Amino acid sequence: MKGNIFMTGAESLIMTAVKAGIEVCFANAGTTELPVVRALEKVPGVRPILCLFEGGCSGAADGYARMKEKPAMTLLHLGPGFANAVANFHNARRAGSPIFNVVGDHASWHRPSDPLLNMDVEALVGTVSRWQRTNQSSDRISHDAAEGISAALSGLIASLILPSDHAWAEIPPSEIHAAGFRFDPVDSESIEEAAKLLRSTSRKALFLGGRALWKAGLHAAARVAASTGCDLLTDVFPARMERGAGFPIVQKIPYFPEHAAAMLSGYEAFVFAGAREPVAFFGYQDMPGRLLTSDQRRVHIGTAFQDAAAALECLAEALDSPPSPPGKAPYMASLRYPELPGGVLTAEKTCLALTALQPENAIVVDESLTSGSAYYSLATSLAPHTLINLTGGAIGQGIPSATGAAIACPERPVINFQADGSALYTLQALWTQARENLNVTTLICSNRSYNIIRMEMRRAGHSVTGTEASSLIDLRNPDIDWVRLSLGFGVPAISVTTVEEFSSAFYRAMAEPGPHLIELVLQPSF
Amino acid sequence: MKGNIFMTGAESLIMTAVKAGIEVCFANAGTTELPVVRALEKVPGVRPILCLFEGGCSGAADGYARMKEKPAMTLLHLGPGFANAVANFHNARRAGSPIFNVVGDHASWHRPSDPLLNMDVEALVGTVSRWQRTNQSSDRISHDAAEGISAALSGLIASLILPSDHAWAEIPPSEIHAAGFRFDPVDSESIEEAAKLLRSTSRKALFLGGRALWKAGLHAAARVAASTGCDLLTDVFPARMERGAGFPIVQKIPYFPEHAAAMLSGYEAFVFAGAREPVAFFGYQDMPGRLLTSDQRRVHIGTAFQDAAAALECLAEALDSPPSPPGKAPYMASLRYPELPGGVLTAEKTCLALTALQPENAIVVDESLTSGSAYYSLATSLAPHTLINLTGGAIGQGIPSATGAAIACPERPVINFQADGSALYTLQALWTQARENLNVTTLICSNRSYNIIRMEMRRAGHSVTGTEASSLIDLRNPDIDWVRLSLGFGVPAISVTTVEEFSSAFYRAMAEPGPHLIELVLQPSF
Repeated sequence: MKGNIFMTGAESLIMTAVKAGIEVCFANAGTTELPVVRALEKVPGVRPILCLFEGGCSGAADGYARMKEKPAMTLLHLGPGFANAVANFHNARRAGSPIFNVVGDHASWHRPSDPLLNMDVEALVGTVSRWQRTNQSSDRISHDAAEGISAALSGLIASLILPSDHAWAEIPPSEIHAAGFRFDPVDSESIEEAAKLLRSTSRKALFLGGRALWKAGLHAAARVAASTGCDLLTDVFPARMERGAGFPIVQKIPYFPEHAAAMLSGYEAFVFAGAREPVAFFGYQDMPGRLLTSDQRRVHIGTAFQDAAAALECLAEALDSPPSPPGKAPYMASLRYPELPGGVLTAEKTCLALTALQPENAIVVDESLTSGSAYYSLATSLAPHTLINLTGGAIGQGIPSATGAAIACPERPVINFQADGSALYTLQALWTQARENLNVTTLICSNRSYNIIRMEMRRAGHSVTGTEASSLIDLRNPDIDWVRLSLGFGVPAISVTTVEEFSSAFYRAMAEPGPHLIELVLQPSF
Repeated sequence: MKGNIFMTGAESLIMTAVKAGIEVCFANAGTTELPVVRALEKVPGVRPILCLFEGGCSGAADGYARMKEKPAMTLLHLGPGFANAVANFHNARRAGSPIFNVVGDHASWHRPSDPLLNMDVEALVGTVSRWQRTNQSSDRISHDAAEGISAALSGLIASLILPSDHAWAEIPPSEIHAAGFRFDPVDSESIEEAAKLLRSTSRKALFLGGRALWKAGLHAAARVAASTGCDLLTDVFPARMERGAGFPIVQKIPYFPEHAAAMLSGYEAFVFAGAREPVAFFGYQDMPGRLLTSDQRRVHIGTAFQDAAAALECLAEALDSPPSPPGKAPYMASLRYPELPGGVLTAEKTCLALTALQPENAIVVDESLTSGSAYYSLATSLAPHTLINLTGGAIGQGIPSATGAAIACPERPVINFQADGSALYTLQALWTQARENLNVTTLICSNRSYNIIRMEMRRAGHSVTGTEASSLIDLRNPDIDWVRLSLGFGVPAISVTTVEEFSSAFYRAMAEPGPHLIELVLQPSF
């Protein structure tokens, strides 16, 4: 007797995902994942979204997770499919994004034959996953998936390796397990210590990361600033922060270690909330790697599996802070738009123009790197918006991440402020924006070079004169034609060279539904 | 006293590479690799070639190594840069391609601080490298590099992880080590066994792989066939083989396991030369994974670090084979071109048209998958040419691999017969073709779907009717505009729908120097 009462292992997987509230799956499936594809068809509730390359899946899952505060699922084809996704998983891992991966694998009985696509998928998956398991039998799939999703919910990457024979096998009706996560209670001892430190020192900073940079966290941080006079700081590439008028002003530490160390040396004490202590992005000859000195005092609150925002609220209470910070205070941002400049676009004018034009409630996915260095300060006083950064430093995050953010928040305008060299890593995600008709506007900062490397060469006292070095830094010869690339993927595009042209193209992009791409051809600014 | 007599660790690396005969380096460098970039400028001999994404570097190195029979070098940026290259390294690993990777890493003293771009690079590198080392000091760089290059020469991936402080440090003039490799002597016992097996059985096959499919190996295999009447077989995706008139006819086993097992069941004995025993590409319900049965007899020659071509020559001698095979024999290919068809392009007509037009001495990089299934048989009787296949099955090999093959053999026409879905994985390599003005003609078989998955669904008895499954298989909505994508990267392109249009575009592409792309819009053939 067989019929509808049986389900496949893959169907139990999708039922578990649906029960856990997972709504989307960024996928690029192959033969070994077909049982899961069929289950997505049969079990309603999870929307599959095709990405043309797995770096699109992982980046989109990251962008989605940062905005939605719940895991996206991905479906990836064996070790090589996962490998293509690793760089953006690295970024997601650094951002603390909850992601649940299903990695199809060969049939369990076939893998010992070492078929051509076989590789050490466990070792590979382990490079970015903090939870991972290779499923051992069909009737354990729901259990494994629920455990994986629960782990993901705590802010990490969970990967379930699923042999295809376990996925296609029929199993009797069985329990669909539930997933869940609760933060650990806030550690009151560290709160007391933090309060004491902030009361007893004069040059002090509250260093914010993770959920401390979301609305509730920032609100509590402002209360702490109101009652202690501490500064609010964050790292170079925070995962996600709410910004603009009505939020407290949070200073980012500079990118280069000598500047960061100089800035940080002004403080005698730090309270870290949901953030780790800052270190240099790279090590340089005769420069510090760790940016704090041993005599600077520090306390950590909201660590590991605690909610950093809740920890800040406890800290505000411990300090008898006012229930809400004053609307107007030197440390609170008030609304002020810069004037739109004019003329030929440079990196600086691009930042000015974007901030002058940026709509309210935008999500800005910033992978602009050198071109966008002026943007952060300028955007402090705009209308409220969300900023997403290249948290792990692995380039190629912007286009996929903006795609995922737009899936998470279809009603909000998404602006991807994007360096050209980095955009070339994962440009295929533009097609997903076109297919899903997403409200993403990609601004390509076209300086036609890996400009950060040029800067680093100059910093190290070497001019880029030799053809060998130039050939590895320039993106010229031939120039990339971004308009054609974008149109090739179905995204309307235009190339602009002046602020006036940019302004008109940007208005149009904001007014029309669906994705747009604007290439900003930047002139060097002297 | 300091001056020219000092060199940096990175300079000792490049000097070692030059001494070992390495001529090119496929690179995408970042801050941690700048000392190596500067060394490439200072020490002449290694030509750096920029790829816009690391999957381009690994695929190009693979294509180069398959054609040049010596290692390409790559230069990759930290763990995430290496991760982007893994899928094509997987293919190279399966193909036995010699590749020497240099992976820049954080300064050794900075890595314990776990900077943002840090990851477990050793675990990642280990998933595809059979030799790997993390350099421990500047004065060991030449030694490590020579050892790595020697390992690579034996037909594997060797990866040297190089901390940036070791690369930038100045060292006193020191020995530049030499690299080298010699095959193990042919194992005469297995040769005797093989000869005995071929003499004593009637239904027998010589199963060829690796160097057995190059010119000398095929010549020896033909001699063995002449004196024993054995068939010549190879696996579905051999790394590289010489083909066409004057070469013996080598049959490929079919892709699907039931067809392959049926074909192979006709033999009572196999001699494997440079090849492993065939297994199914994927495991399917109620189908065999291993394709040979235990009662089929087999002997392996030319295994591991032996030269399979030399082993075949020993076998031919042991069998008292004629010194050269007859020019005309049923198992030798003679020149015969198919007639050019006409009308609307289908997959079958595309294969016919390509074989009818294919120029002598071409290198055909075949990642055509379902569209090109008729090509292999048709091309048996063309003028001599080289065929490169998707050996590891990780899609996205074609465009980068063709790029590397063209760098290795600038005087030969390279034809990349390419599936559209796979091409989208690593299309950035088109730009390198444009920049280096390579004679590559990319033929995009545009069926606008992951057609292999559609076939697999049908095979498993499931029609693709649901929108969820369709959305993961179709590459429509919107259609990819290959002409725009190609022009965006600087490669002249045209889209064709008939054999006549294709023929004229192909002639032009062959006649003009530099890269071209032709999109063949395929109609389903019933």
